[in-house]
Amino acid sequence: MKTAGTIGDYLIDRLYSLGIRHVFGVPGDYVLGFYDMLSKSRLELINTCDEQGAGFAADAYARLKGIGAVCVTYGVGGLKVVNTTAQAYAEKSPVVVISGAPGVREREKNPLLHHRVRDFDTQKNIFEEITVASAALDDAQTAVQETERVLAALFRFKRPVYIELPRDMISSEISQHRHKAAYREKRSDQVVLNELVGEAVGMINGAEKPVIIAGEEIHRFGLQNQLLDFVNKTNIPVASTVLSKSVINELHSSYMGVYQGAAGHEFVQNYVESSDCIIILGALLTDLSLGMFSAKIDQAKTIYVTSERISVGYHLYEKVLLQDFIVALTRSKIKPRSYLTGKPYPRYSYSPGFARGHRITIKHLFERLNSFLTDEMIVIADVGDALFGSIDLIIRGKTQFLSTAYYASLGFAVPASIGAKLAMPHLRPVVLVGDGAFQMTGMELSTIVRYRLDPIILVLNNGGYMTERIMLDGSFNDLQPWQHSQLTQIFGGGRGYDVRTEDQLESALASAKKSKEACIIDVHLDPKDMSETLKRLTKGFAERV
Amino acid sequence: MKTAGTIGDYLIDRLYSLGIRHVFGVPGDYVLGFYDMLSKSRLELINTCDEQGAGFAADAYARLKGIGAVCVTYGVGGLKVVNTTAQAYAEKSPVVVISGAPGVREREKNPLLHHRVRDFDTQKNIFEEITVASAALDDAQTAVQETERVLAALFRFKRPVYIELPRDMISSEISQHRHKAAYREKRSDQVVLNELVGEAVGMINGAEKPVIIAGEEIHRFGLQNQLLDFVNKTNIPVASTVLSKSVINELHSSYMGVYQGAAGHEFVQNYVESSDCIIILGALLTDLSLGMFSAKIDQAKTIYVTSERISVGYHLYEKVLLQDFIVALTRSKIKPRSYLTGKPYPRYSYSPGFARGHRITIKHLFERLNSFLTDEMIVIADVGDALFGSIDLIIRGKTQFLSTAYYASLGFAVPASIGAKLAMPHLRPVVLVGDGAFQMTGMELSTIVRYRLDPIILVLNNGGYMTERIMLDGSFNDLQPWQHSQLTQIFGGGRGYDVRTEDQLESALASAKKSKEACIIDVHLDPKDMSETLKRLTKGFAERV
Repeated sequence: MKTAGTIGDYLIDRLYSLGIRHVFGVPGDYVLGFYDMLSKSRLELINTCDEQGAGFAADAYARLKGIGAVCVTYGVGGLKVVNTTAQAYAEKSPVVVISGAPGVREREKNPLLHHRVRDFDTQKNIFEEITVASAALDDAQTAVQETERVLAALFRFKRPVYIELPRDMISSEISQHRHKAAYREKRSDQVVLNELVGEAVGMINGAEKPVIIAGEEIHRFGLQNQLLDFVNKTNIPVASTVLSKSVINELHSSYMGVYQGAAGHEFVQNYVESSDCIIILGALLTDLSLGMFSAKIDQAKTIYVTSERISVGYHLYEKVLLQDFIVALTRSKIKPRSYLTGKPYPRYSYSPGFARGHRITIKHLFERLNSFLTDEMIVIADVGDALFGSIDLIIRGKTQFLSTAYYASLGFAVPASIGAKLAMPHLRPVVLVGDGAFQMTGMELSTIVRYRLDPIILVLNNGGYMTERIMLDGSFNDLQPWQHSQLTQIFGGGRGYDVRTEDQLESALASAKKSKEACIIDVHLDPKDMSETLKRLTKGFAERV
Repeated sequence: MKTAGTIGDYLIDRLYSLGIRHVFGVPGDYVLGFYDMLSKSRLELINTCDEQGAGFAADAYARLKGIGAVCVTYGVGGLKVVNTTAQAYAEKSPVVVISGAPGVREREKNPLLHHRVRDFDTQKNIFEEITVASAALDDAQTAVQETERVLAALFRFKRPVYIELPRDMISSEISQHRHKAAYREKRSDQVVLNELVGEAVGMINGAEKPVIIAGEEIHRFGLQNQLLDFVNKTNIPVASTVLSKSVINELHSSYMGVYQGAAGHEFVQNYVESSDCIIILGALLTDLSLGMFSAKIDQAKTIYVTSERISVGYHLYEKVLLQDFIVALTRSKIKPRSYLTGKPYPRYSYSPGFARGHRITIKHLFERLNSFLTDEMIVIADVGDALFGSIDLIIRGKTQFLSTAYYASLGFAVPASIGAKLAMPHLRPVVLVGDGAFQMTGMELSTIVRYRLDPIILVLNNGGYMTERIMLDGSFNDLQPWQHSQLTQIFGGGRGYDVRTEDQLESALASAKKSKEACIIDVHLDPKDMSETLKRLTKGFAERV
């Protein structure tokens, strides 16, 4: 007789059925039994060096697959992924955080079990601050329902959830084999939707120069094709934000560039800020995406629709889903524009070639990368000038650019490349990371070598925290110099390159492209050099410190 | 006219006056102004690679100096030290966590500032779970009082506190120059103390074979001399726990060894468990200190006094401080014992020499270390067999052994050696760390090189998570092999040794001892080898997974 299965089996089956194939983490005794179940399941376990790496890898994986999972032990594991989970919350990445925990029966006399902080629910209390739902699967009668409740919240909000597994419960038989639909998909109110679309169409058709700002929710809610339909039908030009970069193929003739207030390109800034109808779809308006609030967007001229807030001019709406709005808008009678079709917007220039013996500049590096990138690559930019410089890269495929341009946690990119590669095996990650960020999580290159992944990691090596130097400098912004290119010898795999001149960069890039291994290119830069975007941001940053 | 000073100055002055000389952290924009003040103050800033390293360094520093401080930025910094702060909470280490934060004026319109998670107080809410007091210094009128309130809690409970600094407040003039005594020292109730001591003296004097278990609170509350007075006056033998190891000089004739239930030495176990009066002073009775609950301690025969709970047999007491109890007990009429004086307890053996070409065993390694250690060294053991093997090391000076034997967060030891060295410059750290723990925080060797510190780091390299292998094994317990000894080339300093045989270990230890630099010795061990303590713990561990 087939049993209904255990709590552990059920969770594993559900993760698999939702598209997860890899689970990231570091084992520990409170989660060891579940690791054993995972290792015998269809899911593949990916061991990172530190839990932080697992958290970032799962975040990247979730952004690309629509769901990701990190699995850790109690306390010493769980509390190490608080920061990565906070990032997933802030930037809407649907990560399932699974933590082992002391068994229900072990807790009876309230003993001082190792890894415990204050109470047995301290960790869960903390995760309630940074997830949209949490559950401790401490009862076989309710485990299915609880699992479904938190997964429903994950999909509804595209934000992380927390599942705690007391170790003596994972083999408990559940009372119910298959889950019922634990929640009903939220639907838009049709009457409100009609009113909203009507007002929006009126504003758009009456405008001289409408423009779209497409945000990260377009990607998170899987609306990239719907956006494209709308753009193709109307020819309204579209900008992204720094956080949503690559929401649309950047060679698309209606794509204008990244809008970032005065920190972005002047052409995009002028176009957007002189528009009489700005259609903002699914974008978080953060300080960085607004160029440290240098952006001048007039609410009277704005249609603003996200999963959290909807307005047309000063009229607020509720009960309408972003996805329904975009589809309804596309179907409505919006007059197509023609004047911009076929006319390319000013673009960042491609490589100007290279000069032997010339020191590499930030400008040269990013221009060179623009001709290096192919549509089989995914760019992952860490925080700092790795990100600011990347704004001008031309990304050929949708979602082929990842960054943490809002929460901005240094050290994301290297471990993210692990998650990205496993989520999208046909894409080769190109990682751009500053030397400061690399010192935080660069040892995950070991994990990359272990699982034979093939990212090309460019370390933008300028000896310090550049973005901070321009705000307020001191020796606290200095870094110990590392011989990055020799790390391949430490970890026993991959290729290392140490480059200072344009011709050295040229041959390193050529060799890396040909190689099928992980490659790390240590790009030595002038400590005073910086991207144009960072120069434009300087004032906004410095006046706030 | 001299002003009263700013919030930032006040905090810096108070930290200095309380004995802090070093502050550990990674800068970020929300804390940059305060970093600038710190860098111009009498305090020295120590930059680590990652915030986790700073948190662990500050914890070690706090254990040795009685107070430590870690200073980080908002969100991406603060949330990375949640785990290290949880450890400080669990094991009673008085760490001041200082976090920068968005300015009060920046928050007015509730904008999406970078590094923000949910609300502006999300981070503070989280720290309230893992500290004994927290304050946001957002008001110059109350900043002094708030600072004093949290510092008072730190000293009363010997646990971490949290101070948040909105960046636009650090230069605000405080309203009061000097702090008043913000709290009154708690005192014991004399009547209760007399009753307690009376009952305790009765039980001790009536006993055949009393024994003391001295815990980590003896160290945290600065009671090591008082304990010694009591031991010297009464000749009652004393054991430590795994967490309190080195609470007393281990060559003291009344010191018996580490009590750890069935996981510890048989002699100590038998002695303690057959005692008719067990005097437990300031010890947390955790699962690890009780040998996974194999300990057999009869409450009827126990005097148990800690900062949190007091009992003699089944009588509970309150309103008495640990320190007052020990002093009063020492002054009371306890009859001295004589039979054990001068008779050494069975001790772990010293090095048996070495044999050329012999593979190094765990047993040999720790025996060898027993003759390597001097009283100018401090041993720092990471979690796993680095800790379990260390239980048999003979530590010559008080507080010359550090570990996290309760919270047990892997990766503590390498960054802890930074804090330990700066707190106790006359001691040379000897770090024992497994390869798994090293992969988490070993890059802080870069920080060690940067600040020219001189630890001797022994990596116990057995290719996996040994403590987990014995519970439940799978490929998830494997590690990518690293060439640890070559890391000195990456970081540009220190000496590396790769040793497989006893004679290689011999010459590496000799060379390291002579050198004044950081040294890393990669000790290759048989993956199946383990310490006697770990063997004894195996059953208790495995049956709980």
